[in-house]
Amino acid sequence: MYNKFCKKQLWECSKELVAVAMGRIPAETVIKNAKLINVCTKEIMENTDVAIHSSRIALVGDASHCIGEGTTVINAHGMYIAPGMLDGHIHIESSMLSAGEYARSVIPHGTTGIYYDPHEICNVMGTDGVDLMIKDAERTPLKAMLTYPSCVPAVPGFEDSGSVVTSQDIREQMKRDEVVGLGEMMNFPGIHFGADETHAITGETLKAQKIITGHYSIPDTGMGLNAYIASGARCCHESTRMEDALQKMRLGMYAMLREGSAWHDLVEVSRAVTQNKVDSRFAVMVSDDTHPHTLLKDGHLDHIVRKAISFGIDPIEAIQMVTINCAQCFSMDNELGSITPGKCADIIFVDSLENFNVKKVIIDGDLVAENGKMICELPSFEYPEKAMNTMHVGEAITPETFKIKTDKKDKATVRVIEIIPAKVGDYERHITLDVKNGYIEADVQKDVLKAFVFERHHNTGTHGVGFVKGFNIKCGAMASTVAHDAHNLLVVGTNDEDMALAANTLIKCGGGMCAVCNGEVLGCVDLPLAGLMNVGTAEEVSAKVEGLDKAWKAIGCDIVSPFMTMALIPLACLPELRLTNRGLVDCMTFSFVDLEVE
Amino acid sequence: MYNKFCKKQLWECSKELVAVAMGRIPAETVIKNAKLINVCTKEIMENTDVAIHSSRIALVGDASHCIGEGTTVINAHGMYIAPGMLDGHIHIESSMLSAGEYARSVIPHGTTGIYYDPHEICNVMGTDGVDLMIKDAERTPLKAMLTYPSCVPAVPGFEDSGSVVTSQDIREQMKRDEVVGLGEMMNFPGIHFGADETHAITGETLKAQKIITGHYSIPDTGMGLNAYIASGARCCHESTRMEDALQKMRLGMYAMLREGSAWHDLVEVSRAVTQNKVDSRFAVMVSDDTHPHTLLKDGHLDHIVRKAISFGIDPIEAIQMVTINCAQCFSMDNELGSITPGKCADIIFVDSLENFNVKKVIIDGDLVAENGKMICELPSFEYPEKAMNTMHVGEAITPETFKIKTDKKDKATVRVIEIIPAKVGDYERHITLDVKNGYIEADVQKDVLKAFVFERHHNTGTHGVGFVKGFNIKCGAMASTVAHDAHNLLVVGTNDEDMALAANTLIKCGGGMCAVCNGEVLGCVDLPLAGLMNVGTAEEVSAKVEGLDKAWKAIGCDIVSPFMTMALIPLACLPELRLTNRGLVDCMTFSFVDLEVE
Repeated sequence: MYNKFCKKQLWECSKELVAVAMGRIPAETVIKNAKLINVCTKEIMENTDVAIHSSRIALVGDASHCIGEGTTVINAHGMYIAPGMLDGHIHIESSMLSAGEYARSVIPHGTTGIYYDPHEICNVMGTDGVDLMIKDAERTPLKAMLTYPSCVPAVPGFEDSGSVVTSQDIREQMKRDEVVGLGEMMNFPGIHFGADETHAITGETLKAQKIITGHYSIPDTGMGLNAYIASGARCCHESTRMEDALQKMRLGMYAMLREGSAWHDLVEVSRAVTQNKVDSRFAVMVSDDTHPHTLLKDGHLDHIVRKAISFGIDPIEAIQMVTINCAQCFSMDNELGSITPGKCADIIFVDSLENFNVKKVIIDGDLVAENGKMICELPSFEYPEKAMNTMHVGEAITPETFKIKTDKKDKATVRVIEIIPAKVGDYERHITLDVKNGYIEADVQKDVLKAFVFERHHNTGTHGVGFVKGFNIKCGAMASTVAHDAHNLLVVGTNDEDMALAANTLIKCGGGMCAVCNGEVLGCVDLPLAGLMNVGTAEEVSAKVEGLDKAWKAIGCDIVSPFMTMALIPLACLPELRLTNRGLVDCMTFSFVDLEVE
Repeated sequence: MYNKFCKKQLWECSKELVAVAMGRIPAETVIKNAKLINVCTKEIMENTDVAIHSSRIALVGDASHCIGEGTTVINAHGMYIAPGMLDGHIHIESSMLSAGEYARSVIPHGTTGIYYDPHEICNVMGTDGVDLMIKDAERTPLKAMLTYPSCVPAVPGFEDSGSVVTSQDIREQMKRDEVVGLGEMMNFPGIHFGADETHAITGETLKAQKIITGHYSIPDTGMGLNAYIASGARCCHESTRMEDALQKMRLGMYAMLREGSAWHDLVEVSRAVTQNKVDSRFAVMVSDDTHPHTLLKDGHLDHIVRKAISFGIDPIEAIQMVTINCAQCFSMDNELGSITPGKCADIIFVDSLENFNVKKVIIDGDLVAENGKMICELPSFEYPEKAMNTMHVGEAITPETFKIKTDKKDKATVRVIEIIPAKVGDYERHITLDVKNGYIEADVQKDVLKAFVFERHHNTGTHGVGFVKGFNIKCGAMASTVAHDAHNLLVVGTNDEDMALAANTLIKCGGGMCAVCNGEVLGCVDLPLAGLMNVGTAEEVSAKVEGLDKAWKAIGCDIVSPFMTMALIPLACLPELRLTNRGLVDCMTFSFVDLEVE
């Protein structure tokens, strides 16, 4: 499919490209003397030039005759060049950065295109939020290609999100050039059980000739996976075992091998290719969720390519997995993913196949980054007041709010969500707690904390009440408006006063994540943009996240990525027990359950 | 892109497919115990089942749970199964068969889809002819996917064809679901020199998000090839040297390796893959032009796969080149080209990778051919009178017509087209001939024959006059209405009486090819459908072609495929000298030239 994210459509400039290739007019830019990483034939081509004009590639080979008056010549001095890298599945919101700042952070690492699913902001603000993200990204050279969120809210009927996406919405959205596909179809139960609305959502995408991106996270690689793929899902980033990824490729699904900040799947899933020696054209590498400090410290797809090579994947094959394979997955290999005539001139310079350090980045023919830094000015973008003011909690939150009333006298047995560090699942536990003055108490000794989820989108004044176990904090409380997928206000704590402080701290700063103790805010990452993102620079946001990390440790928690784990407490599509603003959800039977066990 | 040639669109049956895969409803058909040739991962998968429903594949793996009441179980007994084969570039007209009969001939050989360019019938009858071909093909299970002719006439201004295709026509045609792309863009000079109309034709195709199929037949693999690809051409079947094919693949163009009845390129171009060990995803194998006796004697793509294997291409790789690679070239791998869930159930059974004999063919879930024979009934199709009556020669042709007047007395020096056996090019020769009674004579001793091209579409009564050399016939004459690309009436002969007989024989039978001698018709293949095809069976047409071959030999010609070579005499886009109904064309300067040299 053609790509509205290219600066100029091919039919608008084919005559100019031909004239450049034939030597009749000089190219705007010529790269001389490069080692071309040819992802089409899986070869290195020495001493290769590239002629660029009208934002596209006019010629690859000997471009001496394309140089004339006004041509910018970039001598590669034998450095490697590769196609700009494409991330086939990411959520910008996970970086806590605005779309523009995200682009500024990843472009110097060689990322020239992303396929992003803005389902976090869509849950909060609906299409308005998605449109803002589009506009913010448009001021950057990054090709930010949208897969429209498919599952908003994640579990209809069990939570209140800021918005709802229906199959009618999908039909409308698919008409837009900005929308290249459907965001991860997480509702595989809906697919499996033949839910009309779920199949209507995938059906509208297919009718529009766009791509359904998948999310199939269970280990059944037999009938369940077959059924899911048969519905039209073209790719899936949810493989955690070698056999998941291998079976997806065998069934003609693009296996998106993931290496995010918190999810380190690549070491295992890369074995699908290294161990089995299969044709790897159906393998793609993606980041899914990346935190700002990962972007600053390690990089983006360059980091993932380095990891892949260290895990034994052939270097050119690894590069194919973030270029041509991804472009073919999205049926855009006519525009992106290779350094060949007619394609967008998205080209990166790399020092060596071993180190894979990105030295220069060209997008649409313009040199935009060099030595790890953007070198072009980006216009500023102002998010409207509405987007910076999404905390609409319909009740005053005080310490009183957190009292949990019971009819029991001394003891009450309650359902407790026990988290599993570094995993997405949890367990339902039944634990007996003390009752004082008619209220159930948290128990720090047993590591059982109170948890509250407040609806924050429509001032409904509803909240859900539960207990959680596994964070091991000894004092204080923490709160977050990054609380998947409805992103209501989640508060977890050891005492009511700190819980109220944590909640009100976030209400005041427009959302974010914080840790408090004994009446003091120890760390806070303010995320006023939809309660999900900060409009500061990556460096600023990363510093705040680091501060919060320290605050967490100070109150006693030492699990990996605690905020990631905490953010999943309300995600009612994951087993076993979850807490939304409507209450406790048994995620095995999909029914509400009482806090107290009889 | 989705494919209107599939029986049921995926969004119409995704729920049924899922229900079958999950075991809730029984599959219509289950193939048990096959060796699956997995073209996605390039593996053989033993003991594999395939569940089929609603014309598509529901599940691949263990399909025991998909068998229930009403399920047809086909036990493969360990036989190989592969995706139905796709021919990425063919002209049905070359087979001299109607589209329906062509389908009947190739399906039993495992061909389930073709990308055809009906530019012969389009030159004669325009869109009406194309539409008839579509209708005729539709009565068969073959997915006959149309690439709309781009160059009609081949060389505007130098000949009179039956119709003209403009960029406006292309814009309209690209709106049709039947049209999946643009037929071979032969006008690479137009591309190279930036002709507005040529770029408008490719541009309209790109705007419609459809595929431009290419035709780049010159040995310049540098600037010329780059320029051509930069205009958007996605594939090209005109490689005759290893380096042509290799360079196309390196430049991101699908190299369509050709093995037709007359063009045996594969032995050479397959070295691009076997010798260079490159990633072969950009290699596709096609037939381009196949005669009826080749289809009967050797087969179609099965024959080409066997050849490829004999030339050292890995068998699974060879099968990829006629399945998934071709589907990816046309951006239809979401529908065709692999045996994976959701795809059309186009599946062939093959005895072994060595012999590659196709034993069963399933299209859209129906068993349509077995042991080399179609086993389903095809509805008949009647071509309208108009299509069977396309000889509109505006003059009575008599022996007098062939007299070539001159002012010279005894001798005249004329331009002569010298053919090159088994090549598409020719030479311009200047030869002195006898003049008798004011008329220039043919000279059988020197092998210089008269050649006439009569306009036959619009009764204009125009004809062009020339001489040819190289056929070596000793007596008689031959004529053909297969005369690229305008398909006027071409007559070549040793004497005026036989030339008139040959011409009138074809006018009488509605077009075709014949050889006559001493007032007797020695052989004739009548091609009344547009003067290009016969509506009989492949067996009948093949027998007639065999008779004509004998007739040719009887009058002294022993070159290979003489009719193919003769048919190129009017094709004014090939060097050096050609003859159209408007006269002799110097194809180096693109200008008309006189018969006599001063």
